[in-house]
Amino acid sequence: MRVSKYLLSTQKETPADAEVVSHQLMLRAGMVRRNASGLYSWLPTGLRVLRKVEAIVREEMNKAGAIEILMPMVQPADLWIETGRWEKFGPELLRFKDRHNRDFVLGPTHEEVITDIIRKEINSYKQLPLTLYQIQTKFRDEVRPRFGVMRSREFLMKDAYSFHLDQESMDVTYDTMFQAYNNIFERMGLSFRPVLADTGSIGGSMSHEFHVLADSGEDLIAYSTESDYAANIEKAEAPMPTEPRGAATQEMTLIDTPNAKTIAELVEQHDIAIEKTVKTLIVKGATEEVPLVAIVVRGDHELNEVKAEKIEAVLAPFEFADEADIRKAIGAGPGSIGPVGLNIPVYIDHSVNVMSDFGAGANQDDKHYFGINWERDLPQAEAFDLRNIIEGEPSPCGQGTIALLRGIEVGHIFQLGTNYSESMHANVLDKNGKSKTLLMGCYGVGVSRIVAAAIEQNHDDRGIIWPAAIAPFKVGILPMNMHKSHRVKDMAEKLYQDLNDAGIEVLFDDRKERPGVMFADMELVGLPHVVVIGDRNIDNGVFEYKNRRTGEKRDIPFDQLLDFLKSAE
Amino acid sequence: MRVSKYLLSTQKETPADAEVVSHQLMLRAGMVRRNASGLYSWLPTGLRVLRKVEAIVREEMNKAGAIEILMPMVQPADLWIETGRWEKFGPELLRFKDRHNRDFVLGPTHEEVITDIIRKEINSYKQLPLTLYQIQTKFRDEVRPRFGVMRSREFLMKDAYSFHLDQESMDVTYDTMFQAYNNIFERMGLSFRPVLADTGSIGGSMSHEFHVLADSGEDLIAYSTESDYAANIEKAEAPMPTEPRGAATQEMTLIDTPNAKTIAELVEQHDIAIEKTVKTLIVKGATEEVPLVAIVVRGDHELNEVKAEKIEAVLAPFEFADEADIRKAIGAGPGSIGPVGLNIPVYIDHSVNVMSDFGAGANQDDKHYFGINWERDLPQAEAFDLRNIIEGEPSPCGQGTIALLRGIEVGHIFQLGTNYSESMHANVLDKNGKSKTLLMGCYGVGVSRIVAAAIEQNHDDRGIIWPAAIAPFKVGILPMNMHKSHRVKDMAEKLYQDLNDAGIEVLFDDRKERPGVMFADMELVGLPHVVVIGDRNIDNGVFEYKNRRTGEKRDIPFDQLLDFLKSAE
Repeated sequence: MRVSKYLLSTQKETPADAEVVSHQLMLRAGMVRRNASGLYSWLPTGLRVLRKVEAIVREEMNKAGAIEILMPMVQPADLWIETGRWEKFGPELLRFKDRHNRDFVLGPTHEEVITDIIRKEINSYKQLPLTLYQIQTKFRDEVRPRFGVMRSREFLMKDAYSFHLDQESMDVTYDTMFQAYNNIFERMGLSFRPVLADTGSIGGSMSHEFHVLADSGEDLIAYSTESDYAANIEKAEAPMPTEPRGAATQEMTLIDTPNAKTIAELVEQHDIAIEKTVKTLIVKGATEEVPLVAIVVRGDHELNEVKAEKIEAVLAPFEFADEADIRKAIGAGPGSIGPVGLNIPVYIDHSVNVMSDFGAGANQDDKHYFGINWERDLPQAEAFDLRNIIEGEPSPCGQGTIALLRGIEVGHIFQLGTNYSESMHANVLDKNGKSKTLLMGCYGVGVSRIVAAAIEQNHDDRGIIWPAAIAPFKVGILPMNMHKSHRVKDMAEKLYQDLNDAGIEVLFDDRKERPGVMFADMELVGLPHVVVIGDRNIDNGVFEYKNRRTGEKRDIPFDQLLDFLKSAE
Repeated sequence: MRVSKYLLSTQKETPADAEVVSHQLMLRAGMVRRNASGLYSWLPTGLRVLRKVEAIVREEMNKAGAIEILMPMVQPADLWIETGRWEKFGPELLRFKDRHNRDFVLGPTHEEVITDIIRKEINSYKQLPLTLYQIQTKFRDEVRPRFGVMRSREFLMKDAYSFHLDQESMDVTYDTMFQAYNNIFERMGLSFRPVLADTGSIGGSMSHEFHVLADSGEDLIAYSTESDYAANIEKAEAPMPTEPRGAATQEMTLIDTPNAKTIAELVEQHDIAIEKTVKTLIVKGATEEVPLVAIVVRGDHELNEVKAEKIEAVLAPFEFADEADIRKAIGAGPGSIGPVGLNIPVYIDHSVNVMSDFGAGANQDDKHYFGINWERDLPQAEAFDLRNIIEGEPSPCGQGTIALLRGIEVGHIFQLGTNYSESMHANVLDKNGKSKTLLMGCYGVGVSRIVAAAIEQNHDDRGIIWPAAIAPFKVGILPMNMHKSHRVKDMAEKLYQDLNDAGIEVLFDDRKERPGVMFADMELVGLPHVVVIGDRNIDNGVFEYKNRRTGEKRDIPFDQLLDFLKSAE
C-alpha cells in the first residue's frame, strides 16, 4: 500500500478526551474515529488489525470443529420475553419499536436467538454435540462508554454456543474451546492468562476468563506462584483462618473517635492494631422487606462485591446503600457503623468470625466500641468468604502462595447448564426416545476489544509495537527524499514491488514529507519491520533495517533483505 | 466437512410462505432461517455462500484501489439532520432513542457518516482522489419485507464512496468502479448486465445499475439488439414520434360508454383503434395548491412513473390519487377521465401530442368523447417523455431496436455531485489554496441479495445449481451404504482426506441415510461436483462422477479423480 493512496490520518497531538493509552494511540495512529459516544468508525489501519484478529479467531474456531453462522443484530422481543431477560436485563439492552409498533432489541448477545434456532433444527441426540459460532456486531447501551473501543457501545464479538445431551459431552467441548482460546491468544503473540471466573448471575457450573496481561487492566488476577492456578480476584477463594477464635480478655468500651472517619485514622489515633478492627459496609438488600444489609470484613481486608452478591439477602447486581438511607435506618454515618446492636441483618467474613477483643463503629456518630467479643457483646453472625485474597496468602489450590497481576478480559467461556434451554423448551430425544433438555455452553471473544488490549500491552512512548500476527502491515518502507533522488525512488519502488510479489504486506511511505515526520508516523503506527532507503544506502549496497520492538538497527545487503523479511517474525 | 458434524438442515417440503423460488430453495437447502419479518439467520451453508460473495467483492474493490473501512451501524441523528434526510427519509429509516434520550438511526446507508469522516480527515487536494468502502450490515424498515433475503430488513451491503476535486477525476473513478463491478459479477459466474439507471431523487449526473438476469426479476431492462446500449426501462427514453400531428377530420362527439371501464373494453365495444385512444391518469401533485395532476399517455402505452415523477408539479415519490379525491375534484370515476375540459394541470406524452381525432374519457361517468383534436377541443398541453419504451422500437442509442429482459438489481453506481458535500461542508483546498466543495460518487453491491439472485438464475426443479465460484462446497462425496460396507467407508474416508489435503472444499455425507435421501439433499444444496462411491465402483476401480449443472455422469478411474476435480470449474 502506498501512503499517497491510503488514508493514514495520523495525529501528532494526544487527544484530550482519551483516558487510556490504547485509545490515545488508536486515535493518533489513525485506527479509529469517534462518531458519537461509544460509536467508532474503523479507519483503514484499524480495520486491517481488526480483520487479522477476526481471521485468527475464525481459523481456530473452525479447527475446533465449531460451525460458523450469522444471526441478525436486530432481534424480536418475543424471545427475550420468553427467557425473562426482557424484564431482567437493564437499560444496556437497547429496546425499540419498528414501524408497525412491534418490539425489538439490538442484540447485546444471542443466547435467545440461537436457542430458538436449535430447538427448531435439532430433534435428535444424533445431531449432537454441535457448536455454532458467529462473528457479529453487538450493541450494549453502556451508561458511560469509555476507553475507546475497549468499552464502546457497538463492538465486534465472536460468540459461540454449544449444545449437548449430557455433562460428559459438555465437558469435552468446554476443554476443546479452552484449548482453542489458548491457541487464539498465543497465535496473536499476546501475553495472556486463562483464569477461573465467577459464573455470576448467568449461573452455570464452570467458567474461565481469558485476560491479556497489562498494568492498565481493570481486572486483578490472583495466581499461584507454584501451580497453574489463576483466578479472577472476584472468584479466588480467600483462605479460611487456621487459628481458632481468641478468648475475650477485654471489656467492651465506648470510645470517642471524633476524627476517625476511616480505619486508617482509627488505627493511627487510637493505638489499636488494624487486624483488631472491622469495616462494616451497608449494602442494598434483595427485597423490600430487607432494604439494607450489613457486611463486615476485617479492617485490613477488601470487600469482594461479587462474593457478597451471592448472599441471598443481598441485591444483585451489588450496590452500596445511599448515605441518607443509612443514616435514616441506623442513626449514624458510614464512618461510625458497626455490628453491635445493629438493627439490620449482619453477614461477616470468615476472618471476622475468629476475631476477639476487636473495635468497630458504635452506630453513633464519632463513637466506636473497642474490646468487642462475639456472643458476649453481639449475637453470632453467619460467616462467608466475603473478601479479596491478598498477595502472599496460600493459594486455594494448595500449592504455593498468591501473587497478583492486572489483566484485560478479552474472552470468557461458560457452562450454562439448562439456563436457556429450559425456559425455551429446547429438548431432543435421547437414545431411548425420551425427551431431554439440552445442556448449553457459551464462548465469547471481544474481537474489537483485543485490538485495544494488544496496544495496552505493546507500546512505548513513540507509539504502538504490533505483534507480527496482527500488525496492519508487516513491513514499512521509508525512502529518504525520494522526490529529489531518482536512485532512491527507483530502489524504493523496486523493493515495494518485490515485497508485494512475495506476498508481504508493506506500507510504502511515498509522501513528500520530511524524514522526521515519516519516521515518527512509522513508529506511531508500529509496523514490526522498517526499511530505510537513502542515497547513502545505495552507495553502500545495503538497506538500513530497524526492528520496532527491539530497536535493533542493522544494515542488510540488497540481495539478502527479501529472505530476511520473509523469515522475520 | 462431515455432514454428521454439520448443520445441514435440509427440508423436503416447500415452505408455504415463501413466494419466490430462491426463498423456497434457501429455506429448503438449510441456508437461512427467519427470525422475524424481514430478519434472517444465515445457517452454515448459506453463510459459506455469503462469505464467498463477500470475498470476491472485497478482492475486486481492493484491486480497484478502494480502501476498506468499517462504520458503525448505529448512527447519530445529528448527521441526518444536517443533510435534511432526518425529515425527508420515510419510515424505512428506523429511528430510536438511546438510554440518554438521544436520537439515533439504524443505518440504511452511510453517506452522512462517511462525509463527516472525510470533512475531518481530508484537507488538501493532495489526499485526493480517495475511494473508501465497507462491507457492513444495513437496516431498512421495509413496510412489507418479502422474498426472503431478496428484500429483507437487515441485510449485508458493500458500499463505497469516492471523493474528488473535479469532474475529470470523478469520471476516472466511476469508470474504474464500473469495470470492477463487471469483474465481480463475471467472477461469480453470473449472467448479468450493466444498465443505465435513473438517478432518482438522489440527483447526480450519471448512474448505472447491475442486474442479474432472471425471468423472475422485478426490473425490466431495455437493450439494443445491435449495440451495448442497455437501460432500466424506468430510464430508457422512448423514441420521439417521427410523423407530424394529423389534421382534424372528425367532430368531437359525446358517446355513451356504460360498459367500457378500460381501454380494452372501449376499443372492443366502439370500433376505435387503440392508437386513437388515450389513458388519463390522475396522480398526486407536489404541493397543497396543486393536489392533483393529470398525465395522459396513448391507450396502448404504459405510464412510466419514474419519468412522470420528474415533472415539477408531480409528487415525488410518485403516487396515484385516491378514487374518492378524483371523484370529488373531477366529478367522475377513474374509468371516465379525459383531458377535455379538465380542471387540473394536464401533462401529455410526446406520442399523445401528435394524435388527432382521438377518444378519451369525458369526465362524466360512462361517457367518452371521440374525435378530439388539440387546440380546437382543448388547450395544448405540455409534452414530455412519460411512457415505457416498447420492444421493437428503435433504440435511443441510434443503433438497432429495443428488446426486453428481466433482471434483479444487485449493484448500483452513482455520481452524486455535491449533494452531500455541500450541505455538510466537505471542502478541501485546491492547488491555489482555494476552498472547493468535494465531488462524490457512491457504489453499492447487495451482498446478501446476490445470493438469492444467483439462485433465481441457477436452479432446476431438484434444487440449486451453484456457479463454482460461490458454491458452499466444490465437491460432494456420497458413499453408498458406508455403514454396512467397510470397503466403501475406507474408500470414502480416503477420498475425503485426499480432497481436504488438496485444499478442495468438500461435503462428505457420512450420515446413516438411505441413498435416495442423500442424493436428493446433494441436488437440493446444489454442489457443482458429486462423487458417488459404492461397492460396484470399488470392484471396477472407478468413481461415479456427476456434474450438477450439465447432468453429465461418467466413471473416473481412482487415480485420475483428484486431478479432474482440481481442474474442474
